[in-house]
Amino acid sequence: MNYQKILEDIHQEILPMLPMGKVATYIPQLAGVSPQKFGMAIHTIDGESFQIGDAFEQFSIQSLSKVFTLSLGFPFEGDKIWNRVGREPSGSVFNSLVQLEYEQGIPRNPFINAGALVVSDILISHLTNPQASLQEFVRERTNNASIHDDPVVARSERETGFRNAAMANFLKSFSNLKNEVEAVLTFYCFHCSLSMSCMDLAKGFLFLANRGQCPWTHQQVLTPSQAKRVNALMLTCGTYDAAGDFAFNVGLPGKSGVGGGIVGVIPNQLAVAVWSPGLNEKGNSAAGQYALELFTTKTGVSIF
Amino acid sequence: MNYQKILEDIHQEILPMLPMGKVATYIPQLAGVSPQKFGMAIHTIDGESFQIGDAFEQFSIQSLSKVFTLSLGFPFEGDKIWNRVGREPSGSVFNSLVQLEYEQGIPRNPFINAGALVVSDILISHLTNPQASLQEFVRERTNNASIHDDPVVARSERETGFRNAAMANFLKSFSNLKNEVEAVLTFYCFHCSLSMSCMDLAKGFLFLANRGQCPWTHQQVLTPSQAKRVNALMLTCGTYDAAGDFAFNVGLPGKSGVGGGIVGVIPNQLAVAVWSPGLNEKGNSAAGQYALELFTTKTGVSIF
Amino acid sequence: MNYQKILEDIHQEILPMLPMGKVATYIPQLAGVSPQKFGMAIHTIDGESFQIGDAFEQFSIQSLSKVFTLSLGFPFEGDKIWNRVGREPSGSVFNSLVQLEYEQGIPRNPFINAGALVVSDILISHLTNPQASLQEFVRERTNNASIHDDPVVARSERETGFRNAAMANFLKSFSNLKNEVEAVLTFYCFHCSLSMSCMDLAKGFLFLANRGQCPWTHQQVLTPSQAKRVNALMLTCGTYDAAGDFAFNVGLPGKSGVGGGIVGVIPNQLAVAVWSPGLNEKGNSAAGQYALELFTTKTGVSIF
Amino acid sequence: MNYQKILEDIHQEILPMLPMGKVATYIPQLAGVSPQKFGMAIHTIDGESFQIGDAFEQFSIQSLSKVFTLSLGFPFEGDKIWNRVGREPSGSVFNSLVQLEYEQGIPRNPFINAGALVVSDILISHLTNPQASLQEFVRERTNNASIHDDPVVARSERETGFRNAAMANFLKSFSNLKNEVEAVLTFYCFHCSLSMSCMDLAKGFLFLANRGQCPWTHQQVLTPSQAKRVNALMLTCGTYDAAGDFAFNVGLPGKSGVGGGIVGVIPNQLAVAVWSPGLNEKGNSAAGQYALELFTTKTGVSIF
Repeated sequence: MNYQKILEDIHQEILPMLPMGKVATYIPQLAGVSPQKFGMAIHTIDGESFQIGDAFEQFSIQSLSKVFTLSLGFPFEGDKIWNRVGREPSGSVFNSLVQLEYEQGIPRNPFINAGALVVSDILISHLTNPQASLQEFVRERTNNASIHDDPVVARSERETGFRNAAMANFLKSFSNLKNEVEAVLTFYCFHCSLSMSCMDLAKGFLFLANRGQCPWTHQQVLTPSQAKRVNALMLTCGTYDAAGDFAFNVGLPGKSGVGGGIVGVIPNQLAVAVWSPGLNEKGNSAAGQYALELFTTKTGVSIF
Repeated sequence: MNYQKILEDIHQEILPMLPMGKVATYIPQLAGVSPQKFGMAIHTIDGESFQIGDAFEQFSIQSLSKVFTLSLGFPFEGDKIWNRVGREPSGSVFNSLVQLEYEQGIPRNPFINAGALVVSDILISHLTNPQASLQEFVRERTNNASIHDDPVVARSERETGFRNAAMANFLKSFSNLKNEVEAVLTFYCFHCSLSMSCMDLAKGFLFLANRGQCPWTHQQVLTPSQAKRVNALMLTCGTYDAAGDFAFNVGLPGKSGVGGGIVGVIPNQLAVAVWSPGLNEKGNSAAGQYALELFTTKTGVSIF
Repeated sequence: MNYQKILEDIHQEILPMLPMGKVATYIPQLAGVSPQKFGMAIHTIDGESFQIGDAFEQFSIQSLSKVFTLSLGFPFEGDKIWNRVGREPSGSVFNSLVQLEYEQGIPRNPFINAGALVVSDILISHLTNPQASLQEFVRERTNNASIHDDPVVARSERETGFRNAAMANFLKSFSNLKNEVEAVLTFYCFHCSLSMSCMDLAKGFLFLANRGQCPWTHQQVLTPSQAKRVNALMLTCGTYDAAGDFAFNVGLPGKSGVGGGIVGVIPNQLAVAVWSPGLNEKGNSAAGQYALELFTTKTGVSIF
Repeated sequence: MNYQKILEDIHQEILPMLPMGKVATYIPQLAGVSPQKFGMAIHTIDGESFQIGDAFEQFSIQSLSKVFTLSLGFPFEGDKIWNRVGREPSGSVFNSLVQLEYEQGIPRNPFINAGALVVSDILISHLTNPQASLQEFVRERTNNASIHDDPVVARSERETGFRNAAMANFLKSFSNLKNEVEAVLTFYCFHCSLSMSCMDLAKGFLFLANRGQCPWTHQQVLTPSQAKRVNALMLTCGTYDAAGDFAFNVGLPGKSGVGGGIVGVIPNQLAVAVWSPGLNEKGNSAAGQYALELFTTKTGVSIF
């Protein structure tokens, strides 16, 4: 498969639609990003890599970090983690409190905000320095020792994130946070503020395409069974209330972030990351999702 | 009408059922109150008063304070207040966040917690020292200069009140709080922690039976139209999702608090306060509501 | 009180606003009524009556019939009726199925459509010929032997009323209808199709202002306690999700219908009916509700 | 892969747990089936087949029929079908009306009951004799000309299916049924009543593993892209509000029926059908789901 050619073709098709979608505006650091940005990168488990456009430019990974926190936290608790967070699609927007009330403080899955707050809480309980440990984990997965958070983004999110604060207090009222609300919110904003490029992300998700094993450190990050299950969760829950649409149109396990990144995983083959900051009405990168559709159409790969 | 005799008859009927209901346990200060307590007091607009049982003993007024904050805040904003809080029954429990999400941060009415938080926010915006002003307002309405808050209760509620904190942050995320979340929660816990007796409360609500005029200071606290409307709100929304049941069985505008107090108003006649800490499943005083049913049955008074 | 003068003043104030509101259009028989119609009538328990405008013209009473069916059915079951239908405000639109699902087929109150269907079912269970019996009941209450249904309206509603059919089947699935779905829907459409004038309606509701006793037949239709409770239900639930607003602005127990009629009750004094077919966004007569507001303002009467 | 050995091993492991789960009881024809029944069958796209237990015994396919109706109806409308039914997981039970109300009569996906009713309506609009056409379609897909409906089951479901009748009327009230409610319900009950065996079902779903092409008729039932998308829908929506759990534990696109059948598809390889009438609390076959978990564990196949 000539992946480089495919990336170039996608790039040409995508360029005219880049002004589509609206950049996230809830914090100035995201609002200031140009909607013209577009990058895409592929890493295969055989060690090849391909990229196009702004694939080396770092951006705020936001919710993509939830895959890293889950992958770091899952082994600590094993299947006991599912006592505190579900694994069903929510059918609701990513920051809804409605279901949380009906379901007594158990978030539907680890990729909606409430679920990710619970995973953050779990990491705080298990790690002496969760920020340092998570950063180290991401640096190892990406083989890039320079990855770090953006403290301005983190602070901005913490100061304006009243809805996340509402959710964390709500979880606490159901006793589904063990640590201080403030500590959980701070760690959550930290991991959402990590800056990475498409190249970093495609590399960073590759262990999920590789039965849980990191291709360069050869560390078994997750068991094959756990990796398979994180992929299943990404497929059913990775793009919020557009998960069905994403599965239908793209046909890959994938996770999106409000910074405009989306990463897809083709088990036993590769990980593919795309970035374009303009969002559709569901909060996923508009051009990014379309680029992944083109990718699965042009390559014929799909899990279905 | 021989009100004293009626109170004595009610007392006799109520005594055997006092062990019914469960005392609120979410903070130790409420959990420690004896479920055997029972008091009842009447003040008429003609200046008579009657009481029975523990009518002089102070207890935590909790949500009863929402009538005082609304009555203090309503004149500041006039009908503009209804842009920020509705006046419809919620049909839901007092601390639900579901409706708040569906209705974009506009609480259904000023007597559910979310609505009372908005009213607290309004008072903070209008008053230099809202705690002092509210305390002064309550002292004037009750003609009792010794009324004060219970700082231990307030602190306890502030530290454990994660659901109220969730709600305040949620309101803030919809821009329906103008002041700091922390300031609103602190003031809210302050006014819920006020300690008053049945005698104080019957006196304190009497201006609502008197077309808005305070019987002793002769101050027009609310216009007659405003007083009428606060009474209407108490009838439709004063006992949360049991408002219909309360109207049906008691037939008076009334407001309850989780400390076990309920106050009813008979326009142009009197205010009646009852206290018994055991709660029914709706969070209203079980013996207290039954005592008010007996009161309207025995006196034949009702607004219907 | 010069009620005739007050009615004339109201009429003058209302005339300019009659084009406000939109006539119900879901069946042609309602859509064809002129929005310029306006009538108002008062009957006092002392036997006086007053009227203005189109007060003698008959219109489709629609949901106003729910007060008659409840009043006819309540004595059959007594308080057992509340096992099958609640008495709380719904906080939702009159034809919502959401709450019915969450609350396992028990409608919130007898005045939302689902609750009225249950009351219809109860009448079918108790009466050999429910249509004839209800018609007779209404004729006695109004002292008008010519009142009858409009079969064209009834058939039109039956044929297009898919939402009511959904509700009836839903109730049946929860075993909260004892009779055939078809029979219940037919009787429901029959009673909604009754044609009455403001004069008829003011007379027809007068027993509710008169402690349950019909002023001319002297029959005790409801016990005083039951009459009081139907009034309480009208106040908290009579105008659907605008009940709080109605209580706030009008301050009377009242019931509205989508044909543009509203009837209010002042206990121990009078019943007042108004008709204007233009509806506000809550489905209540816009000019009618405003006329009742003017009525309580000008007369000073209110239950609060 | 020694599929026969794997089936035998699964059979041994499953036998002790067959009394688990409760057989569906809402109609006598389902309630009378023995919970001891267990069958499993595999058909590969290479023409091999394997089976164990009661794999040749016919049972009521119920909701499994929704995959056949969608596959028959999808080509008629193409992607316009998604204007009338969504493709997102519902996050709710299969017969909920709540979401339908909030989302104005557009069912979340074609596999919840409401969505399948819309698909039935589409077939009625396009086919002169939808029952005969669907039966013919299923006979061709299974290469079994003896497959037919069970009229006793269909009638029983039609007569007691008040919740489906509620749903159909509700859809009609939103104008999302074009044909008569009665006709849609009758056809819906017809296709749910089809009787098939595990052998039939594994064969009947094989075109979905074969890029949309029927392996024996060589007919292109769906385009490869459509087949892929039906598989994606099965994965995200095929087991109702347990879809996430199913994806997590089984890791295959699959569809369940209340008769105890589940069919899974491994694209480009095979279809696997299992039957065991005892249901778990989500309405899926308890032993059946576990058998499929064992199948993916023992074979190592999974789409993730």
